[in-house]
Amino acid sequence: MPAGKHMTDEIEIQPEIFANLLDARGEIAEVAAAVARRRPRFALLAARGSSDHAALYAKYLIEVLLQLPVGLASPSTTTLYGARPDLTDVLLISVSQSGGSPDLLAVTESGRAQGALTVAITNTASSPLAEAAELSLDIRAGQERAVAATKTYSATLLTLYLLVDAIRGGDGTHAEALPELASTALSERTAVDEAVQRYRFADRMVTTGRGYSLATAQEAALKLAETSYLSARSYSGADLLHGPVAAIDPETAVLALTSNGRGGESIREVLDAVHERGADVCAIGSAAPQAPAAHRVPVPDCAEELAPVLEVLPVQQLALGLALARGFDPDAPRGLDKETKTR
Amino acid sequence: MPAGKHMTDEIEIQPEIFANLLDARGEIAEVAAAVARRRPRFALLAARGSSDHAALYAKYLIEVLLQLPVGLASPSTTTLYGARPDLTDVLLISVSQSGGSPDLLAVTESGRAQGALTVAITNTASSPLAEAAELSLDIRAGQERAVAATKTYSATLLTLYLLVDAIRGGDGTHAEALPELASTALSERTAVDEAVQRYRFADRMVTTGRGYSLATAQEAALKLAETSYLSARSYSGADLLHGPVAAIDPETAVLALTSNGRGGESIREVLDAVHERGADVCAIGSAAPQAPAAHRVPVPDCAEELAPVLEVLPVQQLALGLALARGFDPDAPRGLDKETKTR
Repeated sequence: MPAGKHMTDEIEIQPEIFANLLDARGEIAEVAAAVARRRPRFALLAARGSSDHAALYAKYLIEVLLQLPVGLASPSTTTLYGARPDLTDVLLISVSQSGGSPDLLAVTESGRAQGALTVAITNTASSPLAEAAELSLDIRAGQERAVAATKTYSATLLTLYLLVDAIRGGDGTHAEALPELASTALSERTAVDEAVQRYRFADRMVTTGRGYSLATAQEAALKLAETSYLSARSYSGADLLHGPVAAIDPETAVLALTSNGRGGESIREVLDAVHERGADVCAIGSAAPQAPAAHRVPVPDCAEELAPVLEVLPVQQLALGLALARGFDPDAPRGLDKETKTR
Repeated sequence: MPAGKHMTDEIEIQPEIFANLLDARGEIAEVAAAVARRRPRFALLAARGSSDHAALYAKYLIEVLLQLPVGLASPSTTTLYGARPDLTDVLLISVSQSGGSPDLLAVTESGRAQGALTVAITNTASSPLAEAAELSLDIRAGQERAVAATKTYSATLLTLYLLVDAIRGGDGTHAEALPELASTALSERTAVDEAVQRYRFADRMVTTGRGYSLATAQEAALKLAETSYLSARSYSGADLLHGPVAAIDPETAVLALTSNGRGGESIREVLDAVHERGADVCAIGSAAPQAPAAHRVPVPDCAEELAPVLEVLPVQQLALGLALARGFDPDAPRGLDKETKTR
């Protein structure tokens, strides 16, 4: 089997998965209606790894579209320190591809016992996590064979979007173009292939984004670290200016998520600052063509809150391409098992 | 003036600041009583940069000691997207050394208007942030002249601890030994000096911790990046095993926070995993003497929830020492202003 075959296949299948998820809107609407009836006042999100970045995306969705305050749960306060907060009126969403993570299971069981309305988002409908939660949604991404999550990440994002949109009474209209836009994004390979050449020998990468796209920046850093062993670090655009910008120099490649909308607009001042420091900026997103950057990877335009679903596609292609160019097999990264059981 | 003079002085003054803060427990108790009377049901923390790591520490304190669910606010949902959630029953704590950050000011003003009980923790009692919040606490660290935050970071931690402890009816007894323990920690320089020699040429560092010490791991990565321009990345011990461990090899130095207590115990499995991958592990903390590590920096023992106040001291000394050894002046890092105004 050629190196990266699983990862390649799972990147390519994403438009189809998006279409399947859009077809499942009826099921998502039922869960959304059950959530809306309970009128939660506060949301907590529990996740690990790539799913943690999906949870960050959901945090923005829930704060902006549902106007609820949101926290990202720290599983260790439950698993290590035995915290048992009163979670009446709390919506607790646990996100795990496998649905088998013992710490998320503990958080979900404990949260439900403490009064939270629990919702599990998994790719394994029969998983312990899906069974422990009061409500659950299947991201319908099919079995994941690659070690680095790609299709399950984007499918989780879209499921979370459709859930939040349905909770506020929407029907997912804005998402209907995604399968076609995703196909377009995946087929326009020139800019990604050039980026693979350009960053073939890069050793230090910083990824950055603001607003919804901060999740993509974090996912990009993780994907690059786990497939190409690059030293990649993500910063919110705002935090980057607070100190880490000092570590940016002409040897640093900066991947900046720049989509149309307020997050993408606000990243401009960050790009100016890193450009002044001589960094090589690669702009990825629907606003990339206008960005002050050394290299640009355009992504089809869509509603700002959906941009993370599309802009991660060239990021995945870049991570895959860099791994192969450097002689690694991203399907067999050193030291990684498919499912990590943190306690 | 010798390179790093400000940073040196501000590291050394910390025991005295801790003593001053302990003397201010009466004032902290008044704010705590006002918070306790309002019986908050959720807490939100807003911060940027080093203060964000202090906020993470407070998240653990509040979840474990007060049993309240906590979220870290994303200022951009307010400043970029105009979210205006209902914050009745919410305790909103804003943490900013300068008290002048426009985005935190916007979050605090908006939060107060939406019904939150707002508390500002700053080093500038007359700052816009302290005035915008209903309640405020001065961390009493004195003017900060160094660019890299040291004394304001530890003073913020201790202020947050004393506040949370007072909210639950405590009187800060566990913290009373800190000034003396901090003096001891700062004066035992041998292990830190050896670490400076050992990591003089290190280019990639990963920092890790769990529980309360995760905040220290994040602060360590930021401090190393902003003073020594190292490519430093922090991971929670749990997340590290989920993917980034693949990027760890014999060229990676791993700074692991290992204090006595549940967080320090649970980091053991992480140390075993990175050790297997050939990484050079530097254990810092009260449990360092027993840790499987290539180098150990012991820190005096104290209550686990106070360990971050002490374990950051050798981390600061290490960042300072590495910067000087590499020929940088940490008081004049490239590209950094003292106060960053993100909007």
